[in-house]
Amino acid sequence: MKGKFISLEGGEGSGKTTAIHFIQKWLESHNIPYLMTREPGGTPLSEEIRQLILTPREETVNDVTELLLVFAARAQHLSEKIQPALEKGIWVISDRFLDSSYVYQGKARGGDFAMLDQLATWVVGDNKPDATLLLDISVELGQERVVQRQHQDRLDKESLSFHQKVRDGFLERANADPERIKIVDASLSLEAVQKQIEEQLLQLNNAWSGDV
Amino acid sequence: MKGKFISLEGGEGSGKTTAIHFIQKWLESHNIPYLMTREPGGTPLSEEIRQLILTPREETVNDVTELLLVFAARAQHLSEKIQPALEKGIWVISDRFLDSSYVYQGKARGGDFAMLDQLATWVVGDNKPDATLLLDISVELGQERVVQRQHQDRLDKESLSFHQKVRDGFLERANADPERIKIVDASLSLEAVQKQIEEQLLQLNNAWSGDV
Repeated sequence: MKGKFISLEGGEGSGKTTAIHFIQKWLESHNIPYLMTREPGGTPLSEEIRQLILTPREETVNDVTELLLVFAARAQHLSEKIQPALEKGIWVISDRFLDSSYVYQGKARGGDFAMLDQLATWVVGDNKPDATLLLDISVELGQERVVQRQHQDRLDKESLSFHQKVRDGFLERANADPERIKIVDASLSLEAVQKQIEEQLLQLNNAWSGDV
Repeated sequence: MKGKFISLEGGEGSGKTTAIHFIQKWLESHNIPYLMTREPGGTPLSEEIRQLILTPREETVNDVTELLLVFAARAQHLSEKIQPALEKGIWVISDRFLDSSYVYQGKARGGDFAMLDQLATWVVGDNKPDATLLLDISVELGQERVVQRQHQDRLDKESLSFHQKVRDGFLERANADPERIKIVDASLSLEAVQKQIEEQLLQLNNAWSGDV
């Protein structure tokens, strides 16, 4: 049986890293073979593309350039890492995937959705995640957590409106595809968040164990 | 008046480098401000993308990944280097441009032409070169020149069929767009090739000096 592909999405301060550690332990306790990966990145070439995208530079980066780089990395990640693992029955957990492109490059930065749809069709096609866990948290609470983590002392207003667009974008995606995208309330305590994630994983695993 | 955009195309051993030096001297002798550039590359980020494309690696590079990287570099090259120069009245001479993508990624490697067309529309749009000089040479003669240059002693057959597709691909492009793509017979002596290039440049310059 093919492995299951789960992506994890969420804005800053939503607790993705902690959630990933929890999912990892859950998979181990259920003896499910898994692979943890991330986007942009995942293969040596895709990680090099990630560096190109994330490195601060004097040169203005054209929006289309960034979008094509993100999908170049994704095409490589899917064909060289995700699909081969799934074929072997290994579950793949990706820290961010396609939804992040729609939300960050599309919704938050005003990218071209027709271009996003076309690239998604070419690069991802039917290889969407079987399930996506969206860690949802208010911008204020998310930023509070980020500030604590990074010892920042100031939030600029433009950044807040950007993060609001990110949150709205993810929620819109979830509302449009509730079968795949499961919303986790990430504003609760660590225990309560993990309980929700565990319930989602159990439900998914039960549903999938009926698959051939 | 906007500068003119000329691309230079041709297979291996067609003498592009020598031709570029000749064009450079011609532009200087006519007091035409110019910028020499190349693809993939042209800006710091595009040159980094070029390195990703050209670096030999153990990882198999997905065809779609390569195509998206080529066009990511091109989007950046156009918006950050070529268009600003043309706006200032500077001529831009590019060692390879869009035709190479159709010929190498499309014709020679069997890429998806619908994808190429869509990417060309998004990234290049109306910003095609005003003229393209195609240095055409038979595969045999081109390879002879490459062998002399690189002190190779052997040509493999697969490589010959690849180079034949490249030549055919460029000639098909030229036949489909004879107004823009001017064929230069690169099999002749250095002097005879340069004479053809000079004639093309004079004709283009005369035609363009009527432009507003």
